[in-house]
Amino acid sequence: MNALVSPESAVDPSVDEAALDVPALVLGLARAGRSAQRVLATMPSAQRAQALRLGAAALRRAAPAILEANALDVVDGKAAGLSSAMVDRLRLDPARIDSMADAVEQVANLDDPVGQIIDETRRPNGMVLRRVRVPIGLIGIIYESRPNVTADAAALCVRSGNAALLRGGSEAARSNRAIHTALVAGLVEGGVPAEVVQLMPTQDRAAVGAMLAASGLIDMIVPRGGKSLVARVQADARVPVLAHLDGINHTYIDRQAEPAMASDIALNAKMRRTGICGSMETLLVDAQFSDPHGLVAPLLEAGCELRGDARACAIDPRIKPADASDWDTEYLEAILSVAIVDGLDGALAHIARHASGHTDAIVTADEEAAARFLSEVDSAIVIHNASSQFADGGEFGLGAEIGIATGRLHARGPVALEGLTTYKWLVLGTGQIRP
Amino acid sequence: MNALVSPESAVDPSVDEAALDVPALVLGLARAGRSAQRVLATMPSAQRAQALRLGAAALRRAAPAILEANALDVVDGKAAGLSSAMVDRLRLDPARIDSMADAVEQVANLDDPVGQIIDETRRPNGMVLRRVRVPIGLIGIIYESRPNVTADAAALCVRSGNAALLRGGSEAARSNRAIHTALVAGLVEGGVPAEVVQLMPTQDRAAVGAMLAASGLIDMIVPRGGKSLVARVQADARVPVLAHLDGINHTYIDRQAEPAMASDIALNAKMRRTGICGSMETLLVDAQFSDPHGLVAPLLEAGCELRGDARACAIDPRIKPADASDWDTEYLEAILSVAIVDGLDGALAHIARHASGHTDAIVTADEEAAARFLSEVDSAIVIHNASSQFADGGEFGLGAEIGIATGRLHARGPVALEGLTTYKWLVLGTGQIRP
Repeated sequence: MNALVSPESAVDPSVDEAALDVPALVLGLARAGRSAQRVLATMPSAQRAQALRLGAAALRRAAPAILEANALDVVDGKAAGLSSAMVDRLRLDPARIDSMADAVEQVANLDDPVGQIIDETRRPNGMVLRRVRVPIGLIGIIYESRPNVTADAAALCVRSGNAALLRGGSEAARSNRAIHTALVAGLVEGGVPAEVVQLMPTQDRAAVGAMLAASGLIDMIVPRGGKSLVARVQADARVPVLAHLDGINHTYIDRQAEPAMASDIALNAKMRRTGICGSMETLLVDAQFSDPHGLVAPLLEAGCELRGDARACAIDPRIKPADASDWDTEYLEAILSVAIVDGLDGALAHIARHASGHTDAIVTADEEAAARFLSEVDSAIVIHNASSQFADGGEFGLGAEIGIATGRLHARGPVALEGLTTYKWLVLGTGQIRP
Repeated sequence: MNALVSPESAVDPSVDEAALDVPALVLGLARAGRSAQRVLATMPSAQRAQALRLGAAALRRAAPAILEANALDVVDGKAAGLSSAMVDRLRLDPARIDSMADAVEQVANLDDPVGQIIDETRRPNGMVLRRVRVPIGLIGIIYESRPNVTADAAALCVRSGNAALLRGGSEAARSNRAIHTALVAGLVEGGVPAEVVQLMPTQDRAAVGAMLAASGLIDMIVPRGGKSLVARVQADARVPVLAHLDGINHTYIDRQAEPAMASDIALNAKMRRTGICGSMETLLVDAQFSDPHGLVAPLLEAGCELRGDARACAIDPRIKPADASDWDTEYLEAILSVAIVDGLDGALAHIARHASGHTDAIVTADEEAAARFLSEVDSAIVIHNASSQFADGGEFGLGAEIGIATGRLHARGPVALEGLTTYKWLVLGTGQIRP
C-alpha cells in the first residue's frame, strides 16, 4: 500500500514503469479488490462507518504530507502549462483538506443502504420473498485533476460495502497517493482490508483501457471529469458506465409564469455557477410570455452573453444571433442560447430534439402545463418552478454524490449510496417443492 | 407492417434481401420505435392494457393463419435437420396459441409500474423531490426458435410503456411474422402505434450485430435462447444486456437439514424439469449430514446420473467420479454433480468458486447457518428450505418474466414489468433558487 512514498517522486517508486505488464497489473488489482470486498460486505455497518471516521482522522493528521505532495504537483502542473482553472482544481490548502475529511465523516454518518429490505411478499404456498440491498462489488473510478475525488469516491464506495479501484489524473499523482496512503491507513486501523481502496500505481494510459475492458471483474465504472474523458470511457467501456456526457439543460418560461419568479430562476439557473453540469444552457420563452425583456435584461447585466433565434434577438439589441450549433452546445460559461417557442408544445418539441437528458425545467403557474411538462420531458431530472442548479446529490438530500447519470438503466440523476447498491432475492421456505 | 404476408414465403416478401442495407434498416426501425414509444408513454395505462386485450383477441382470431405459417416452418425445420427438441419448441397447436393469447391477457391485467412513485421527500427549502417510474424506451429482444416469445416479450414491453424491436430465429420466421401481424393489428385497433412492436424483416445475421451496436438508440437488449446466443450478445453488445449465461445452481444440505425435506427438495430441484435455468446442477452435502444415501438414492432411482467427488462416490457405487469440469457445468439434463463439503464454510467456499450467480439454496433447520448462507452467497436468488425450481417470475408472483438476470446492475433475478422501467426525478418547487 505504498506506506513509505517519497513525495518527491512523480511516479510511484514501487513500480518499474518500463517493465510493467499493465493488463496483468489491473487484473491483479481487480482480483484483490474483489476478495477484499467480500470481507468488507460481511462487516457490520457500524464498523464500516467507524473505519471511515478513522480514515478522516488519518487525513487530518497527514495534512502536512498531503500539502507537501500537492505543492510538488502544483509546481509541475504550472511548468507543464496547466490552465489557471486546472491549477486551482489541483491545489490543496489546509481548509480543503479539512473539507475533504469532513466529507468523509459525512459519508460515514449517512444511512447505510446495505441490508435494507426493498420489498417482501408471501406466496400462496407460504414462501416469503424478500429483496434486500447488497453492494455492487468493485467500482472503478477514473478521474482527472481534482485530488479530493480520491477521498470522496473511496468513502462512498466503502460506506456502501463496495471496493474501489481509483485511477486519478497524472497531474495529481503525488497528491492522490498521499491522500490514498492516509485514508487507507485509517481504514486498516478500523479493520477494513487495505485492498478495499486501491489506487492505480501507474499513470500509463493503458491502465484505463484495461479497466474499461475488465468486464466481469470491475462491476461499474464511474468517470469523473471533463467531456473528453467521459466520451472516451463511454465509447470504449465493456463494463457498465455510470455518467453523463452533457448537461444541455433547458428552462422553459411559460405564458403563465409569474414574471419575477421567472426572472429570478433564469438568472440563478445560468449565473449562480456557470461551470456546473446543472446550469441552464438554453432559455426557452413562450411567445405569449408577458415580460421577455425582464428575463433577459438581468442576465445581460450580469455579464452573460445571449445568443438568440430571430424572435429572441428582437427582444434586446444586445442579443447576438445564434447559429444551429448553439442549441446543442453545453457552454459551461456565461453564454446562454435563447429561443422563443410557441407555448408548451413548442418547448416540448425543442427539448425532445436538443436536451441531453440531464435537467430540464418549466416555470409556470399553470398546473396543467406543469403536469404535462413533468410527464413528457424524458430527462433524469424534471423541475417545476425551481432553478436547475439544484441538480446535485447534496441538494437532493442524498448527502453526497458519486456523479449524475443520464443513462436510462440502474440509476438516473444524482447517484449516491443507493445507486452503488444492487439487490438480491431471498426466498424463505419451509420445505416447499415446485409442483 | 406486412399486413398481407403470404405464409408460403420463408423470407419477408416486402424485403429485397439482396439490396438490403442492414445497418440503415436497423437504424430506421430503431428511430421509428423510439418515436412510437413516446406516443405510447403518454397513453393512459388502461388504454395500453385494453390494446393488449385486443391483441390477444386478434391472436385467437388469427389462429388458422398462424398454424398454417407454423406448419411450413416445422416442415422446413425437419428438412433442415432440427433436433426433435427444437422442433417441439417451434411447433404450435391450437392449445399453444390459446396459451399465448392467455399470457398476453395476463400481462394486460398486471399492475402497471409506470407512474408509480418510488419515494418522495421534502427539502428544508420546501421543494418536493419525487422519483417516479417511467418506461426505459426501446427494448431489443433477440430470441431463438420459440415463436411464443414474439407475443410474450411484446406484451411485457407494451404493458410497461416500452417499444419492442424483435429479432426471432430464422426457423420460426413465418410463425413469428404471423403472430406479429395479428398482435399488431389488435394493438393498432386499441390506438397503439404499429411501430411500438416491430419485427425485424430480415434474417440477415448482420441485423443482430447492428442491434447490439445501436447504443443510444436501443436502450436494452434481452437475449432469449441458448448459451451460445447469450454469450455472443454479451460479448458483442454496446447496448446494456439483461440476461444470464449459466444457471450453475447449488443446493447445500446442511448437517441440521431435516432428512425428508432435504431429499424432497433435492429430487425436485434436479428432476422436476431438468432443462430450465433454475434446476440444480450441483448438490453439496455436509459431511456431517445424517442420511446422505437417502438423498442420492431417489435421484438415482429417478434416472439421474450422479457424478461425485471421492467422498460422494463412497455413498453409493452407482455414483460416477466427477472430473474438474463437472463443477462448472450447467448440464440442463438428468446429470448432477455431488460434492461432500465440510460444513457451511465448505459449502460457501465451493459456491463462491463455482456458482454462476443465478440461484443457490441451503436446506437446514439451523437458523444461524441459514442466515449466514443468505447473507454471504452473492447470487441473484438465495433460497432457504425450498426448491431452486421456484426461480421463475411467475412463481415469484411477478405475473410473467422477460428473463432472469445475473448481471449486478439495474435488475437481478426474475425480471418482469418493474425491470422494464427506470425512474426520473421530479422537483416540485415554488420559485426556489439555489443560494
